[in-house]
Amino acid sequence: MADRRLDPVPADNFAFGLWTIGNVGRDAFGDPTRPPVAPAEFVRGLGRVGAAGVSFHDDDLIPPGSSAAEAERVLAEFRSALDATGVRVTMATTNLFTHPCFKDGAFTSNDRGVRRHALAKAMRGIDLGASLGAPVYVLWGGREGVECGAAKRPQDALARYAEAVNFLCGYVRDRGYPMRFAIEPKPNEPRGDTFLPTIGHALAFITTLDQPDMVGVNPEVAHETMVGLSFHQGIGQALWQGKLFHIDLNDQKIGRYDQDFRFGSEGIKENFLLVRLLETSGYTGTKHFDSRPYRNEWGDGIWEFARGSMRTYLALAAAAREFDADPAVVAALAAAGAGELAEESVGAYTPTAAAALLAEPADPEQLAARSYVNERLDQLLIDHLLGLPRA
Amino acid sequence: MADRRLDPVPADNFAFGLWTIGNVGRDAFGDPTRPPVAPAEFVRGLGRVGAAGVSFHDDDLIPPGSSAAEAERVLAEFRSALDATGVRVTMATTNLFTHPCFKDGAFTSNDRGVRRHALAKAMRGIDLGASLGAPVYVLWGGREGVECGAAKRPQDALARYAEAVNFLCGYVRDRGYPMRFAIEPKPNEPRGDTFLPTIGHALAFITTLDQPDMVGVNPEVAHETMVGLSFHQGIGQALWQGKLFHIDLNDQKIGRYDQDFRFGSEGIKENFLLVRLLETSGYTGTKHFDSRPYRNEWGDGIWEFARGSMRTYLALAAAAREFDADPAVVAALAAAGAGELAEESVGAYTPTAAAALLAEPADPEQLAARSYVNERLDQLLIDHLLGLPRA
Amino acid sequence: MADRRLDPVPADNFAFGLWTIGNVGRDAFGDPTRPPVAPAEFVRGLGRVGAAGVSFHDDDLIPPGSSAAEAERVLAEFRSALDATGVRVTMATTNLFTHPCFKDGAFTSNDRGVRRHALAKAMRGIDLGASLGAPVYVLWGGREGVECGAAKRPQDALARYAEAVNFLCGYVRDRGYPMRFAIEPKPNEPRGDTFLPTIGHALAFITTLDQPDMVGVNPEVAHETMVGLSFHQGIGQALWQGKLFHIDLNDQKIGRYDQDFRFGSEGIKENFLLVRLLETSGYTGTKHFDSRPYRNEWGDGIWEFARGSMRTYLALAAAAREFDADPAVVAALAAAGAGELAEESVGAYTPTAAAALLAEPADPEQLAARSYVNERLDQLLIDHLLGLPRA
Amino acid sequence: MADRRLDPVPADNFAFGLWTIGNVGRDAFGDPTRPPVAPAEFVRGLGRVGAAGVSFHDDDLIPPGSSAAEAERVLAEFRSALDATGVRVTMATTNLFTHPCFKDGAFTSNDRGVRRHALAKAMRGIDLGASLGAPVYVLWGGREGVECGAAKRPQDALARYAEAVNFLCGYVRDRGYPMRFAIEPKPNEPRGDTFLPTIGHALAFITTLDQPDMVGVNPEVAHETMVGLSFHQGIGQALWQGKLFHIDLNDQKIGRYDQDFRFGSEGIKENFLLVRLLETSGYTGTKHFDSRPYRNEWGDGIWEFARGSMRTYLALAAAAREFDADPAVVAALAAAGAGELAEESVGAYTPTAAAALLAEPADPEQLAARSYVNERLDQLLIDHLLGLPRA
Repeated sequence: MADRRLDPVPADNFAFGLWTIGNVGRDAFGDPTRPPVAPAEFVRGLGRVGAAGVSFHDDDLIPPGSSAAEAERVLAEFRSALDATGVRVTMATTNLFTHPCFKDGAFTSNDRGVRRHALAKAMRGIDLGASLGAPVYVLWGGREGVECGAAKRPQDALARYAEAVNFLCGYVRDRGYPMRFAIEPKPNEPRGDTFLPTIGHALAFITTLDQPDMVGVNPEVAHETMVGLSFHQGIGQALWQGKLFHIDLNDQKIGRYDQDFRFGSEGIKENFLLVRLLETSGYTGTKHFDSRPYRNEWGDGIWEFARGSMRTYLALAAAAREFDADPAVVAALAAAGAGELAEESVGAYTPTAAAALLAEPADPEQLAARSYVNERLDQLLIDHLLGLPRA
Repeated sequence: MADRRLDPVPADNFAFGLWTIGNVGRDAFGDPTRPPVAPAEFVRGLGRVGAAGVSFHDDDLIPPGSSAAEAERVLAEFRSALDATGVRVTMATTNLFTHPCFKDGAFTSNDRGVRRHALAKAMRGIDLGASLGAPVYVLWGGREGVECGAAKRPQDALARYAEAVNFLCGYVRDRGYPMRFAIEPKPNEPRGDTFLPTIGHALAFITTLDQPDMVGVNPEVAHETMVGLSFHQGIGQALWQGKLFHIDLNDQKIGRYDQDFRFGSEGIKENFLLVRLLETSGYTGTKHFDSRPYRNEWGDGIWEFARGSMRTYLALAAAAREFDADPAVVAALAAAGAGELAEESVGAYTPTAAAALLAEPADPEQLAARSYVNERLDQLLIDHLLGLPRA
Repeated sequence: MADRRLDPVPADNFAFGLWTIGNVGRDAFGDPTRPPVAPAEFVRGLGRVGAAGVSFHDDDLIPPGSSAAEAERVLAEFRSALDATGVRVTMATTNLFTHPCFKDGAFTSNDRGVRRHALAKAMRGIDLGASLGAPVYVLWGGREGVECGAAKRPQDALARYAEAVNFLCGYVRDRGYPMRFAIEPKPNEPRGDTFLPTIGHALAFITTLDQPDMVGVNPEVAHETMVGLSFHQGIGQALWQGKLFHIDLNDQKIGRYDQDFRFGSEGIKENFLLVRLLETSGYTGTKHFDSRPYRNEWGDGIWEFARGSMRTYLALAAAAREFDADPAVVAALAAAGAGELAEESVGAYTPTAAAALLAEPADPEQLAARSYVNERLDQLLIDHLLGLPRA
Repeated sequence: MADRRLDPVPADNFAFGLWTIGNVGRDAFGDPTRPPVAPAEFVRGLGRVGAAGVSFHDDDLIPPGSSAAEAERVLAEFRSALDATGVRVTMATTNLFTHPCFKDGAFTSNDRGVRRHALAKAMRGIDLGASLGAPVYVLWGGREGVECGAAKRPQDALARYAEAVNFLCGYVRDRGYPMRFAIEPKPNEPRGDTFLPTIGHALAFITTLDQPDMVGVNPEVAHETMVGLSFHQGIGQALWQGKLFHIDLNDQKIGRYDQDFRFGSEGIKENFLLVRLLETSGYTGTKHFDSRPYRNEWGDGIWEFARGSMRTYLALAAAAREFDADPAVVAALAAAGAGELAEESVGAYTPTAAAALLAEPADPEQLAARSYVNERLDQLLIDHLLGLPRA
């Protein structure tokens, strides 16, 4: 394990949002436990811990109600910190959930005035993001949902959602911004049920848009995990459909409130499979952390949290490389038929191919006699995860 | 409530699978508790209770290992019962999960021989279904998944899945069958994690196929509910994308084994919203029940179970009609802005529209002051569900 | 259904907490959407809607940091409103979760100073509750848990928890307050995992206390439901062990953040079974609602929410009475053997009884042939819930 | 890590049930995938892999319907294998779930005849277990539950459950068997909802029994995890109450069907915390595995599965020892106040202690300023789990 580099460098392409490490620790039942971190200070911290990128909601960077002069000052300090550290803005997004005007939704609020306000706020946020070079704009529809299902016809909500994304795509093209959108699905919380609840629903929605090429997904570990879906399989489908434009790394136990724990702190096996997939799939986007320190953390501990997030990613990436290089694993994968799954079963339909298939003698009992040695393969995975010496 | 007809007639278009009412009650921990019901007897029972349709897996109708003569006899009796009762075959499907040869998957087994066997079995099942007039062929990939995530690269599995569906579409077109496919998603069980886990993932997958028009979805209440997704919202998206080709009605508690309870016996409110959506959306397919009597049921009780399934559907449909006709509901929906959600927010992008939006004075505080009266609306829903007299 | 009284009167013994109807709508992702309701105004509102009782956390009534004069003024107004309306204080409790000092727990914080502060705050809260006549003091250990499991040895945490409850029991006895304690279990949120996560764990814990007779449970629908346990069965065990001292009514979907929805708005069947159990078990405590209006509600809608909570309870109680009086139900219960379950199987152990049992001829096949007609019984339940006319 | 012994020896006290490694792979949707393993052969296999103990249901050992001669032959071979290998019978139990006569429950079936048959079957199973030296008798009430909640009054069910356990305690005492009972809780499956759903409910129930000292719990990882409870915290409460009489190790994802995966294959962090707790708590019972190989496993792979189960346990135990010996961990635990939680907060109630507490100056802001460094502690845990070199 001598080649396990665990200290991140900018080339690793890790990024953090302003609202993550610097989260003040307010939750549904309690007041803040930590002071805020100013954006420029945050960027300098990122530089120190080896991160490459920073992301923000419009309101994280420029507090609502700021005067033009205040906004200019914040921006100047932020740019100065970016220049000094080499940290890049890798993503921007709009806060369409904190203000009470969004209590019934933003792009899918039943109030047309709210929908128009949300669009204008998103356009201004896009301008801000573009001015700072953000290549990806995330759309998280946190309030796009219902508690009282009778209040919104789902088809109407989806139509409004699509209208909004189409409009924003038009805006970005019109302005000539080199920016793509990434929709972030979430099944529930803060709404009872959210529209576009999973990666799959978002991928399907995107195919209905006017400019589907401009829009991909920004899956988050915690969001898919809340409802117990396999995150790495969802990422697999997003990659297969060419739509993984961004990713939010954190952690979560199934069936709970949105925990946003430090990446790699809960679903260790699933995260191993995720990192193995990301590192071998050609994904070149940032590895973006959308998590926050435990609320009982204080002071420099928030930066330890940041370092731990990246350290665990690097450790899992190293373990995945070692796993795939282990001859015992290579043999187990072969015995499991993992490579065989990449071979065509029959190819494109032709009457000849169909006739051949139907003429093939079937021997289900013999087919049933094969072992896929998945227990050995899985134990090898656990062994590599736990850093166990192999005989 | 004088117009609440609760006894089904064929025009209601209800259907049941051979494996449902007649389920023998075997589960993961116990042996069968009931004798099987022969297919022809089953059809006659359906006729008696007012159902319109019957569905089957190939092996439900023709037991594996049957001689040609036995198969002929079963088929003749089945056709005779269909003719006598007017019950139609409304769906057919293939059993690709019971035999141990499918223990690692069918279309996505790592064993190419199993994949080819599964395709041939599906083609024969399609022939059988077509011969009996089934307009819809369901593809449930019960074993298409993994416990040991390292054993299958998700992208390979999806590629094989797509290859299989494309091949079957080619086969159906080649044979000239007037048949469409409906993919039935499920998140897990009997596999640890299943490919195409939700309606969304299936809808997205379909857009990648060679003949996407031939393929829709067959969502099941229990399957989406297992992971806690809102079923009626998922159906809303399937309808919005024009892909609701079939539906499986039953019931389930969130976060549990696949319960397949009688429709309407658990998620009463969600089912109300579902029936309201189906009845007002123009869905013309069968309302198909994929459920089974409690295992401690015996004898004629299995037909009471069938009657109850349809009775509750009709009752919820009546309640939904009455809900939407109630002036208090009409007023609450208006106050909630439900109709306003059907109005365009801004329309297609134009620079002029964008400029207008950005020039609009924003008054978030005023927008926040609106009540959406969702409590009143939801209470009215509960009142109608409970059959409460209104003041 | 002519005897269905749906408008509450004080004799119905409904109660609401100050933090419920008057909740300002802040959540983990958003700012308040409603103005607060002053305690005295709240009590007058309760009087108008027919509630019998009010409950509070110390800080709900007397805002932290109030001067003695301010506290006196609030208390005087509160008492005056109680006197004017006849509303009684039916429960009091301590807020040991909002202030950041409780970020690592209160009675089980790793900081001994915090534990002592929590005890002193609870003692003052008990004094306040006693001064207003509260017969029940609820202990909800919202912050008694961990995210990082290594940080607290569970046995130490339980020992500290027991020490705290024992001390408070001693205090109440010493002061001579006619007050009992009710522990409110919750599985998670706001902590990753909470100590005493369910009714069962709390019941078991109570048996270890110095004064177990002084302590019972305060189960909450949402809390047990979050992890998918049957609430009415948990209440059944609490009743069976004589420990149902208080109850928190609200609603929730399984596997989600703590939703605190209006009672009866989600788990309709489970709530029917709950109300049937409460109404027939001799429970004489208040029916206390710990829920809050949807965040997009505003103005008088919060009182509609309160009315709806009670209306649905009364409707379910009426439906349960009608269900149990329906001859078809009586027959189905008999066929199901429901009454037979109340009969002793064998009685206390004696060698003679044992010998008799072992000598009894076993005929499992014959025992297996019985139908428990649970489908009919359950359909009757659904029929009564939906207010369906019976043939 | 040179001292990490990963090959089990009998002194490690690992045990497996006959139904585990030798599981034939039948599930709710599929037929068996593997041949059965005869009991004597199974014991010899256990001897080879270094296990210390074997457990069984009555019907696993003596197939129902065996003649006396057949039973004798099986028993003789079984005893012979035990003698030859030194494997001990460490637990026995009764199958009260497979036969259809138990479809409505066993000790809580609504049919009194079934209840009596279940008791007699359990008594005979106890005789069989005692004859083979089993010190623990497990009671898993797999069918003790309902789908149709109206069919059983929960209090009646609990009364019958208690009656049965009391009777069996009387029987064991009467016979003079040196045997204790362990109740195995489970929340659901195969019943919709099970009585005694969690460790907590079982612990509470036990306190109501006639001979509470004879009865403890047999918690299973998968069962508590199904509903998302923290297993190690549940075990902590069982240990704290002196009731951990046996344990079932396996693995499971939250919110799913009962998966019975190989121990340590899913919830790696939770299992680390569990093993750390077991190894430091003085627990001296067997570490019993109640799991089964993936269904697509065949042949010798089932024994690799057994070896992997024990290997991972030993690896986690080693990691836990190293974690607790690491000076950085010792420092982090101290900074977190982990040891401080073992200190009394105030001690037993006295008026003087109460007065002192109330007189203590409170400074919540200062108390809130502490960091519990849980991020560092948790990252150290992850580092140790992943076998990462420390700087």
